[in-house]
Amino acid sequence: MPAMRDRIVIDWGTSNFRAYRFGPGGMVIDRHQAPAGILTVRDGDFEAVLRREIGRWMTPEREIFLSGMITSRNGWVETPYLECPATLAGIAAKAQRRKLSDGVRLNFMPGVSTLAPSPDVMRGEEMQVFGVVAENSTATIVLPGTHSKWVRVVDGAITGLRTFMTGELFALLGQHSIVGRLMPKTPAPFDEAAFLAGVDRAFGAESISLLNDIFTARSGALLGAFPVESIASRLSGMLIGHELAAGLAEAGQGSPRLVIVGDTALVDRYSKALAHRGQAAEIGPADAAVAGFRKLATPA
Amino acid sequence: MPAMRDRIVIDWGTSNFRAYRFGPGGMVIDRHQAPAGILTVRDGDFEAVLRREIGRWMTPEREIFLSGMITSRNGWVETPYLECPATLAGIAAKAQRRKLSDGVRLNFMPGVSTLAPSPDVMRGEEMQVFGVVAENSTATIVLPGTHSKWVRVVDGAITGLRTFMTGELFALLGQHSIVGRLMPKTPAPFDEAAFLAGVDRAFGAESISLLNDIFTARSGALLGAFPVESIASRLSGMLIGHELAAGLAEAGQGSPRLVIVGDTALVDRYSKALAHRGQAAEIGPADAAVAGFRKLATPA
Repeated sequence: MPAMRDRIVIDWGTSNFRAYRFGPGGMVIDRHQAPAGILTVRDGDFEAVLRREIGRWMTPEREIFLSGMITSRNGWVETPYLECPATLAGIAAKAQRRKLSDGVRLNFMPGVSTLAPSPDVMRGEEMQVFGVVAENSTATIVLPGTHSKWVRVVDGAITGLRTFMTGELFALLGQHSIVGRLMPKTPAPFDEAAFLAGVDRAFGAESISLLNDIFTARSGALLGAFPVESIASRLSGMLIGHELAAGLAEAGQGSPRLVIVGDTALVDRYSKALAHRGQAAEIGPADAAVAGFRKLATPA
Repeated sequence: MPAMRDRIVIDWGTSNFRAYRFGPGGMVIDRHQAPAGILTVRDGDFEAVLRREIGRWMTPEREIFLSGMITSRNGWVETPYLECPATLAGIAAKAQRRKLSDGVRLNFMPGVSTLAPSPDVMRGEEMQVFGVVAENSTATIVLPGTHSKWVRVVDGAITGLRTFMTGELFALLGQHSIVGRLMPKTPAPFDEAAFLAGVDRAFGAESISLLNDIFTARSGALLGAFPVESIASRLSGMLIGHELAAGLAEAGQGSPRLVIVGDTALVDRYSKALAHRGQAAEIGPADAAVAGFRKLATPA
């Protein structure tokens, strides 16, 4: 196996910029993170932000690989989506190449899309998925977040995905809705019992629609069924519960291999909810994207 | 039957103030409407607003009946909820009475609540319900809106209700979410085909969760499955479809008697969606609350 050359990989999302420098052998030898997501970039001058953040690393010898929303319509170079089934090699092959004035080479990775059973897209999460699954693995990878992704992997290829607007809806309801207006101004601490009660409601027979469930987070408090301090935790449980119920039903009967990947606090909530419902799940590494990039950066 | 005395009834909600003066015999002989909902009232001075809007009608001889959010925690006089089963007579019996300095008599009507199968409340919609159903009727009354209500009436009594946050969620998603950001700045005209496609999606097998469906209103447009101009109509169809699917499933097998009551444009969307799904529904009068108040104001 030839020695791998020094490379830079960047996970550049809406809110965050995360860069890693790989040394020979595929070890991360330097890393840099900043709140320099694409929404913070002025006048589309992505190159200026790149040089400001990691200019000290940049040489023509070190190729740069970029994924995440930086490759979207609102990013630097829009890459077409690669349709499922998508492998890491397929993603690498579809990268869009650019060369900067000083000879530094950039590779913009495509996102992944599917049209069946329903249209869906992701940009960046696929690197976390490939970081978690071995070459011939079959599993469902759950990536909780603002837009939670459930990604189906069969024999190492991404064969499908579903996005759930769980995190965004939780934020919208807390900030702008009639339910949020009843919540205490100072956020109450996480109430695990209320959270799990919310999860149980989502799975239970009394739940006929999320549209009704979220209203009960208000009416239940109004009627004294629980204190207003527990509304946020209960609402979080209901929303995550609805996501889990739907995701598990689609993942299939029996015990699909589930791997949860992401931010520690969120992974903790999802794990607790799954365990409470009797569903086993593995927890992937927090830096799964780095592992994905490493596989990409390592010559086969 | 004794001649009915002149009475004033007021449907005073969050955004609107609607007052009706009933003459002898129960006919409306004067009406007044203003955007003077309880959210517009300063320093809790509800009496000043009442006198400003209908002072010319007010005499000690004309009792005033008030329902809606004016009887809530944020209103003038908070009335306890009447728990289901709730009849019009039961509501009248629980009214809270107040007398103003000039001898004008006020009756604040209670809202209606239920705890099973899940906590729910309403304030004001019950007058629309009683306006629609005859004394011994059995039906499900659907009141579309920001917080849509499905109210079960058995033998003339309200036996249960469910609130769906359909309208509020549609507004939140359009104004604040990633789906809304893709919509044209100038609202596109209503697209009936897209609306009905959204309804069908909510009822179809590809729909595993509303949390996923709402995201597809964005990803479908991104992938070219439909134009961005149709996102709002499609999203409206999905949300209303989810409400209808859940409401119909709970209302029972076969053909429950459904009556839709409310704002003309919304009733039209709900009727179209129901007809498209092969479900018969009656359309109640737009001024159903007046009919309810009339029954209340008419001596038995």
